[in-house]
Amino acid sequence: MATPDSPIRVGIVGGTGYTGVELLRLLAQHPHVELTAITSRKEDGMAVADMYPSLRGHVNLRFSHPDRAALNECHVVFFATPHGVAMAQAESLLAAGVRIIDLAADFRLQNTAAFEHWYKMPHACEPILREAVYGLPELHRERIRHAQVVGNPGCYPTTVALGLAPLLAEGGKLIDTQHLIADCKSGVTGAGRKAELGLIYSEVSDSFKAYGVAGHRHHPEIVEQLEALLGRPVGLTFVPHLVPMVRGMHSTLYARVTPEGQNTDYQALFEAYYADEPFVDVMPAGSTPETRTVRGSNMVRIAVHRPSNSNQLVVLVVQDNLVKGASGQAVQNMNLLFGLPETTGLQHVAVLP
Amino acid sequence: MATPDSPIRVGIVGGTGYTGVELLRLLAQHPHVELTAITSRKEDGMAVADMYPSLRGHVNLRFSHPDRAALNECHVVFFATPHGVAMAQAESLLAAGVRIIDLAADFRLQNTAAFEHWYKMPHACEPILREAVYGLPELHRERIRHAQVVGNPGCYPTTVALGLAPLLAEGGKLIDTQHLIADCKSGVTGAGRKAELGLIYSEVSDSFKAYGVAGHRHHPEIVEQLEALLGRPVGLTFVPHLVPMVRGMHSTLYARVTPEGQNTDYQALFEAYYADEPFVDVMPAGSTPETRTVRGSNMVRIAVHRPSNSNQLVVLVVQDNLVKGASGQAVQNMNLLFGLPETTGLQHVAVLP
Amino acid sequence: MATPDSPIRVGIVGGTGYTGVELLRLLAQHPHVELTAITSRKEDGMAVADMYPSLRGHVNLRFSHPDRAALNECHVVFFATPHGVAMAQAESLLAAGVRIIDLAADFRLQNTAAFEHWYKMPHACEPILREAVYGLPELHRERIRHAQVVGNPGCYPTTVALGLAPLLAEGGKLIDTQHLIADCKSGVTGAGRKAELGLIYSEVSDSFKAYGVAGHRHHPEIVEQLEALLGRPVGLTFVPHLVPMVRGMHSTLYARVTPEGQNTDYQALFEAYYADEPFVDVMPAGSTPETRTVRGSNMVRIAVHRPSNSNQLVVLVVQDNLVKGASGQAVQNMNLLFGLPETTGLQHVAVLP
Amino acid sequence: MATPDSPIRVGIVGGTGYTGVELLRLLAQHPHVELTAITSRKEDGMAVADMYPSLRGHVNLRFSHPDRAALNECHVVFFATPHGVAMAQAESLLAAGVRIIDLAADFRLQNTAAFEHWYKMPHACEPILREAVYGLPELHRERIRHAQVVGNPGCYPTTVALGLAPLLAEGGKLIDTQHLIADCKSGVTGAGRKAELGLIYSEVSDSFKAYGVAGHRHHPEIVEQLEALLGRPVGLTFVPHLVPMVRGMHSTLYARVTPEGQNTDYQALFEAYYADEPFVDVMPAGSTPETRTVRGSNMVRIAVHRPSNSNQLVVLVVQDNLVKGASGQAVQNMNLLFGLPETTGLQHVAVLP
Repeated sequence: MATPDSPIRVGIVGGTGYTGVELLRLLAQHPHVELTAITSRKEDGMAVADMYPSLRGHVNLRFSHPDRAALNECHVVFFATPHGVAMAQAESLLAAGVRIIDLAADFRLQNTAAFEHWYKMPHACEPILREAVYGLPELHRERIRHAQVVGNPGCYPTTVALGLAPLLAEGGKLIDTQHLIADCKSGVTGAGRKAELGLIYSEVSDSFKAYGVAGHRHHPEIVEQLEALLGRPVGLTFVPHLVPMVRGMHSTLYARVTPEGQNTDYQALFEAYYADEPFVDVMPAGSTPETRTVRGSNMVRIAVHRPSNSNQLVVLVVQDNLVKGASGQAVQNMNLLFGLPETTGLQHVAVLP
Repeated sequence: MATPDSPIRVGIVGGTGYTGVELLRLLAQHPHVELTAITSRKEDGMAVADMYPSLRGHVNLRFSHPDRAALNECHVVFFATPHGVAMAQAESLLAAGVRIIDLAADFRLQNTAAFEHWYKMPHACEPILREAVYGLPELHRERIRHAQVVGNPGCYPTTVALGLAPLLAEGGKLIDTQHLIADCKSGVTGAGRKAELGLIYSEVSDSFKAYGVAGHRHHPEIVEQLEALLGRPVGLTFVPHLVPMVRGMHSTLYARVTPEGQNTDYQALFEAYYADEPFVDVMPAGSTPETRTVRGSNMVRIAVHRPSNSNQLVVLVVQDNLVKGASGQAVQNMNLLFGLPETTGLQHVAVLP
Repeated sequence: MATPDSPIRVGIVGGTGYTGVELLRLLAQHPHVELTAITSRKEDGMAVADMYPSLRGHVNLRFSHPDRAALNECHVVFFATPHGVAMAQAESLLAAGVRIIDLAADFRLQNTAAFEHWYKMPHACEPILREAVYGLPELHRERIRHAQVVGNPGCYPTTVALGLAPLLAEGGKLIDTQHLIADCKSGVTGAGRKAELGLIYSEVSDSFKAYGVAGHRHHPEIVEQLEALLGRPVGLTFVPHLVPMVRGMHSTLYARVTPEGQNTDYQALFEAYYADEPFVDVMPAGSTPETRTVRGSNMVRIAVHRPSNSNQLVVLVVQDNLVKGASGQAVQNMNLLFGLPETTGLQHVAVLP
Repeated sequence: MATPDSPIRVGIVGGTGYTGVELLRLLAQHPHVELTAITSRKEDGMAVADMYPSLRGHVNLRFSHPDRAALNECHVVFFATPHGVAMAQAESLLAAGVRIIDLAADFRLQNTAAFEHWYKMPHACEPILREAVYGLPELHRERIRHAQVVGNPGCYPTTVALGLAPLLAEGGKLIDTQHLIADCKSGVTGAGRKAELGLIYSEVSDSFKAYGVAGHRHHPEIVEQLEALLGRPVGLTFVPHLVPMVRGMHSTLYARVTPEGQNTDYQALFEAYYADEPFVDVMPAGSTPETRTVRGSNMVRIAVHRPSNSNQLVVLVVQDNLVKGASGQAVQNMNLLFGLPETTGLQHVAVLP
């Protein structure tokens, strides 16, 4: 077992994207981690710091070919890969005693039909999926501690699940759980590091749009989490939007208060629900959190409003989509897996401005 | 009466803000306009093109002091001023036969109590307000033609009213009019040209936030318009957000379909409603309009969605907040006032990218 | 000959990039143009306005396959294509009496060795190149009027040539022509509409860098123009930089004053040189022009400084790289080719803010 | 004396600007610092984290009135104030044994005439100024260790001095020191956190401009440093520009190689000069560093070019203007003052993307 005296040997599969470089930023300064291997089929032999000069002096590794990487000697392997890669390699890594944190979608959805519909591939290892744990520590902390495989949540689902979870208390009596709305806004890194026309600066800058209105792969993931909390079906309309900014996600959540929920103090409800969470900050009443207040940090900030004392609740949630929405949360999960304090290596102050 | 041979003599009160410079951009190229006077107490004597070098060679006027400007000799005066200025000058201009288009809020709300609550000043000329027309041509075209005073709409209300108007058809039977949601996103010019800390580049760029969740002055304006269309009260939750972009507004509107509305073809409904409108473009089914497709133009683009054939409608509306959301609409109103084709001087192609 | 009664029939080869859509924006509103054909091998049959919704209602053309496009029936064909396309088609179009304006580099450099070095292809039609005219009207107006083929200048060369031309007066005695420096900054559209990793929003935004320091294809083009003006070799260091903005180019030019140039009034020199130019605006002494003052317009603004009365001149030049730096200049050339006033269809006021 | 067991008690005067919040970000995580007091006349009593929610959970201090703050009990006080504040308080703090690091300009320029010309105020404590040390550790490390007062450099001077210092070797024989050019580009935070019209988002975004061409207060500061290195006068043209980005500075430096410098290996010269510097990264030959590779970090990256093997050197320097250009360098100086390893608390990996 890894201990402070015996660091966690970490492997990364596919470290050339944004979740990869963000993992490297966080792990390079984690006090109990030894970066052991990072793979890239395409960049085999290239120094990681040549691709990302921000890592010069911090990461001395080179990318190695997946076939030659010493992944089996790692304590844990992160997959910062396209969907489908982790499930192809999971069995052999597990057999070697390596634990897995997948930042793609292979181990997020228990509903494999939904997985196959949205990700356009059959699921390759359902038995492993059944044992995998959804890596949202605020909801599944105890199960994560003992997991062999963690499916690290999508960025949108992290904000929506954390923003609505307190409202599903008391058996969902407080709100109309059949007509939830999540109007979400993401910075451009949410789309990954891909040479796509729709992502180039001149297409995205100084403009704003919705996308995926007819359907988005994070919809079933959110719904699965909410239904697990509630114990019965929910109805959710989810509309993602693209914001001309690099990092940051802002979800505006709408829930209608039921007659039974009219007298609830929602500010107090949220504060109590997250009182012991190191990475969820319930803001004072009346706040409107800015995404920049979490830039580069693993924090989620939440504000709950009931405008004009109407029966419409508005919950505002911000996170850095690459940290709490991806790589920071993955490190948080790693800390849980290895019995470290959950905040180890994750106490960065947000870079503001 | 102004004719092509006898141009419209136009005055502008307060032309130093963004709606002012945008009016100048549009009017400088309008074929039937003669810019006669532009006032600024503070910049008296300064050449307009010294303040806005973009106008060099296009506008040769100088700012003149309000007391000395020949506003009474104009056919129409635009007020691109803070709230409260137009109502102080309206009576004397009207007495001189000058028509008024106010880009501020003085003549938008018929409910003077709401006006006084939100704008923190008493209304100075209620009799004139009673005769004033809300300058949204798509809803009030005939009345605008004969108006002496036009209250040019706010930017948010333009998008929300145009996006929801078709759904209020058939006496509002198609949707739940008591629980409408408008999740709106605005570029930074929506806040005007003001030396405020919260507006500086380093505070706004690469970040995203909601604001005014507890209440916003455009809320009663939107509600008044929707109720006028419907003939009875509506319920609306309105959450504005600030987008790090210069121009552009995107409103995402949510309305729940009633049992009676289940079989309506909403795409057809919108297309029919706006079939003859030169400045409302109902996009093909499935579209997600981008704000940049209207940058610098007077066009509104609308798309209507019903995700997963659920009972939740999602209407997407984009405009340039400085054009259709302010100065372009003001020119459209001027065209109506003077019997010109409504599109005169307003057929700019959007500047994309 | 085209006249107002008999419009200019215009074809565009390759209209899917940014110079293409910008040409369409300008030509759609040009009073003497009839858009006749636009070709795209890849988008054959697609409505142009489906690709660029900003053109909905303004352009009704569809892309057609190059083999089937009626280019031979046009009066003029614009090539908004990659380098090498125009020279392959020039001969047959010229044979059909069609005039050509190439926005790529095929007809810019008379030095074919330099062309072949920088563009990695042999020049396919040197005889036509010999007759082609470099389409910078301020320097070659008379020759353009009678050209059959116009090589439309690169964006950087337009600013550097216009910024330095007045200083090359009097046989170049005023400045040290062997040690010129052009420190240039371009918005991202200068790189075109390409799915390249280095151009995506998350790579470019909120960052700044130089590129092409070791050599850039616009270097020989600038040098050729300066040497043509001067009649002998010049020495130029050219360093381009990428600015996180969509449109706009700012060139900061450094030239050392010779002893003979010490008493020259450079402000007066520039003002006299460009006194009759409709698209070159010499700003008042002390100005620092902003790129946004020319956004969407065909104007170049220039300011000349001599800091601390030292012997170092600093010339600041701004343009919209897609207008005066590409498509606007191409339309200006078309106006010259067809005997129209040079400003026809090009008098847009810049969109500011 | 402060030791790891006895932390450095730190006071900050004026912590509400960007250098203030950046100091707080860095000091909050510094292992040997105890934040003792932070003053603000205007925000007396306000929790620091209420002004900057990014600091929630990291900084529990409240702003206190300068008159009541326990600054005399600190080991060191940082001034993150407007120019002129530090020199008014220096004498009494020094008398109490407190060391001073001023992030404003009071102790940068030994030439008080230049100070008074550019900062429009007399210098209030010349004797202290004589003993103060310019806080650029790479040039003045030993003197800083023993200083009582450190004048923390300006952002532009840091990049220009570090970029040109190696070229001033061998008595300045390698380059023409009389005609140096610094074409510098800064993100908007360089202008501070001020409610000024010229800094608001809608004025700055998607545009680019030069400013201060006729003269800038950093010019004499740079010249003073270069002359101190060289031992005789230099000639420098300095043109700053404003980039639409939050953080980051890029200086492009031009120096003409003398006949004696023709055979120098400049890459090797730079690498040797900075071989032992923890915060200066000489990039491989041919590099073009991006500002984002240092975002949030204390690193400077430098690349040296000699395009086409001409006699014109081009040096590219990037830094985060708020870190190495301000608060990070201040902490680096503090580490030197208190005998700590220079990199303590400053080893952040840049936040990229």
